[in-house]
Amino acid sequence: MVSTAQTVMFMGRPKLYEAAAEELRQQIQRGRYLPGQKLPSVRELSRQMSRSIATIQQMYQTLERQGWVVAKPRSGYFVVDQLPGQIEEVPRLPRPRLQPESVSEWRMALNSTSHNPGDIPHLFGRATPDPNITSLNPLKKYLADMTRAANASTLGYGALQGVSGLRGQIARRMVSAGCRISADDVLVTTGCQEAITCALQAVTRPGDIIAIDSPTYYAIIQALEAMNLKALEIPSDPVTGMCLGALELALDQWPVKACVVTPNFGNPLGGFMPKKNKRRLIQLAREHDICVIEDDIYSELDYRPGRPEAIKAYDTDERVILVSSFSKVLAPGLSVGWILPGRWFRQVEQQKYITSLTTPVLPQLALARFLEEGHYDQHLRRVKPMYQQRRDIVRNLILRFFPEGTRVTCPKGGLLLWIELPENSDALVLSRAALDSGISIAPGPMFTVGGKYRNYFRLCYGTISSESDYAAINRLGKLAHKTIRPVPRKETGRLEQEHA
Amino acid sequence: MVSTAQTVMFMGRPKLYEAAAEELRQQIQRGRYLPGQKLPSVRELSRQMSRSIATIQQMYQTLERQGWVVAKPRSGYFVVDQLPGQIEEVPRLPRPRLQPESVSEWRMALNSTSHNPGDIPHLFGRATPDPNITSLNPLKKYLADMTRAANASTLGYGALQGVSGLRGQIARRMVSAGCRISADDVLVTTGCQEAITCALQAVTRPGDIIAIDSPTYYAIIQALEAMNLKALEIPSDPVTGMCLGALELALDQWPVKACVVTPNFGNPLGGFMPKKNKRRLIQLAREHDICVIEDDIYSELDYRPGRPEAIKAYDTDERVILVSSFSKVLAPGLSVGWILPGRWFRQVEQQKYITSLTTPVLPQLALARFLEEGHYDQHLRRVKPMYQQRRDIVRNLILRFFPEGTRVTCPKGGLLLWIELPENSDALVLSRAALDSGISIAPGPMFTVGGKYRNYFRLCYGTISSESDYAAINRLGKLAHKTIRPVPRKETGRLEQEHA
Repeated sequence: MVSTAQTVMFMGRPKLYEAAAEELRQQIQRGRYLPGQKLPSVRELSRQMSRSIATIQQMYQTLERQGWVVAKPRSGYFVVDQLPGQIEEVPRLPRPRLQPESVSEWRMALNSTSHNPGDIPHLFGRATPDPNITSLNPLKKYLADMTRAANASTLGYGALQGVSGLRGQIARRMVSAGCRISADDVLVTTGCQEAITCALQAVTRPGDIIAIDSPTYYAIIQALEAMNLKALEIPSDPVTGMCLGALELALDQWPVKACVVTPNFGNPLGGFMPKKNKRRLIQLAREHDICVIEDDIYSELDYRPGRPEAIKAYDTDERVILVSSFSKVLAPGLSVGWILPGRWFRQVEQQKYITSLTTPVLPQLALARFLEEGHYDQHLRRVKPMYQQRRDIVRNLILRFFPEGTRVTCPKGGLLLWIELPENSDALVLSRAALDSGISIAPGPMFTVGGKYRNYFRLCYGTISSESDYAAINRLGKLAHKTIRPVPRKETGRLEQEHA
Repeated sequence: MVSTAQTVMFMGRPKLYEAAAEELRQQIQRGRYLPGQKLPSVRELSRQMSRSIATIQQMYQTLERQGWVVAKPRSGYFVVDQLPGQIEEVPRLPRPRLQPESVSEWRMALNSTSHNPGDIPHLFGRATPDPNITSLNPLKKYLADMTRAANASTLGYGALQGVSGLRGQIARRMVSAGCRISADDVLVTTGCQEAITCALQAVTRPGDIIAIDSPTYYAIIQALEAMNLKALEIPSDPVTGMCLGALELALDQWPVKACVVTPNFGNPLGGFMPKKNKRRLIQLAREHDICVIEDDIYSELDYRPGRPEAIKAYDTDERVILVSSFSKVLAPGLSVGWILPGRWFRQVEQQKYITSLTTPVLPQLALARFLEEGHYDQHLRRVKPMYQQRRDIVRNLILRFFPEGTRVTCPKGGLLLWIELPENSDALVLSRAALDSGISIAPGPMFTVGGKYRNYFRLCYGTISSESDYAAINRLGKLAHKTIRPVPRKETGRLEQEHA
């Protein structure tokens, strides 16, 4: 692959300041300098780039004309707030049919997620944090030390409810979510997926209707299918999350048993449900006597300081079951999650028991210590700005390399982007072509029942940090150009009327 | 607690040879010298015990009179083959009702197994191997090293089916079980309990009737309850396992969907199904078109060399789902199990996906290496005779300290004893009293539907190795004496007619 900078160099000897401009422009696009950020002074850059002062001055003037930088009197040059060509519109979503549907072919989900991770160099299809951050080292050390010294207590069967020290730490953290709970209210699970499945099994029977976000996390859809539950898709907004007007309409019309919702940085949209909507959702749940299963897994990756409140903060009659895990903040391989089962404690505990007896003790002890000694908070301080920066870099790369008309979400937390390709694109085709190129993505139809979101895909920027990853996004963009079907506009037909 | 030896010393100065006899008798009862084993020569023992030759000679004559040792001409003294007071009869079992039953109160299971392991010094109630054996050290080292060096592949989400190197090793080991399978036929699970649950979920619907051993592993009973399945208890024999005559009767009478069976060293009885019964079971399953879920978890702990064949060895039409794990041979805390789903591969894979997405990669890699490098076989060579010896020691202690009429199984593999107390004993009362004394046991009613096995309990000898554990069994025996209810024989009534 030949990068654009090199292409410029090959095409008829560009002037020195043009080459320098191209170089800086790429650095901006790759996020070395973020929108609004101050750029180095002319003198400094002259040293850094080994070019004359005059060349750098010409370069800055060129970039200013092209709309990449702006000069502020007596302050120097800054990256513009909105990069050229960057369309700040959020993806539009087709409206789901608002009626219970049988669930789509589950193997689709597997196609994008069942690879041996070592086989795919650019695993953008799974929602994974970066496991190579040094702030995880104390955790790795505790785990390694405890493994070496493993004994009957740490290698045997643990207590069903989980290690009490860890439950105490989880309860303590929930204070900033607005929840007053104690260690006794927490049940440790083997990851968040077990928590979701146990919650669904505790509150539903086969045939029940479950309201879910649309689009939503594919494993929720697969769980509904496997349990013979019916999915009722409620449109979700990329900025504010589940549309409560639509939910209300659905609750009036259908005997919904439970609602599975991710209010903070939902998967895949990354939306953030405002406080008043959280309150309203609880009110609706009470009026229709339904259970709310709240997926809280991304909340601590809020790019602002602290974390947002959970829906459970407004839950006065124990009808919210909150599920979460350490998979997105630390590492999925720990397989330690938890559940606050509210009024269904006994039923959830029983489901957890038959699913896995107990959760391994050793990772729980290591995590408890990691939390107790403040390493978890240090890690959060480290990764939150890092993921925000990666979000910006990857968004910019996508907007640069993908076909015109591509739209990308801009989540305020989490690890995920939801990308809308031009209408006549096919993300399933793209996903297969990408795989041949060593890249995994999660195509839109995985996130819904019955074939919607054909021209959408989800991409995780959690681990995107190298030049090779950036080049992969460039490749992906080129493939996206190729997979646009040259069909007349009228025949696309897959998209129904758009909402909001 | 005052040991018997000390008691003897306090009571009116016993003669020197009497004290020595008591000392050696205790060593025999605690298994330092096993039944049939040659004892040290008079001269040797004189040195070891710092007593005169004459005292040791008198001691041996006393023990011979008491029936503990036997003198063989020109060979010296040997422990007798059958210790005095040792009743070699296997426990008798009440006959189950042979009709589908609703499942018993599940919390009973928890009462005996939900403790924080650190809180109970003598955790005999859970089926756990000894995690302090040095032959596990290479595994702990691999785990620790890999944890320190953890990266995106090992700490992220793994492939759904599991690490292929480990699956290959598992397939290879199944050859000695009589099964010709490849790595592709194996699905790694998060422990054996997940494998059992996924198997049941893949082949059943709510309301289905499932045939199970009686008594059987309590978590199977709890799984049936949680899935709204009906349990049909088939009497199991402490020596030969599930009674196939009774199974045949049941299959003729009821529309059974599946049969869950542990043919090798079943839990709790430790029975061993003969080869011809395994063949017959497959034949019955074919005739009635039922699925066989075979729990293979204890098979490699066969005290003879090698391992016995699985029922799956005789399975010609893929109707056996075999489940297993490393929990009993290595450590439960690894939480790595597997399933051979036969014709239900797709359904089982889907259930595994929604239950836990994937199984943590790191322990799988460490296990694959442990197996590849031969450490697993070395470990088996080490632990099999060790557990056999512990079985003998613990059986002898029980027969010595428990009330007259107590019967104990003598399994040829595994980690478990099933103990029948005198008829008017109550194992639930004993279990509660034992807990106050720092000892957990698993009372009989956990292993059945509807209150049977009241005067039975299961005890795991896997970790019993210290004087303090032996003293705990002495305490447990004393408690067992106290919990016998002084009721007239006619009123016991709990036992129905006994079966072979």
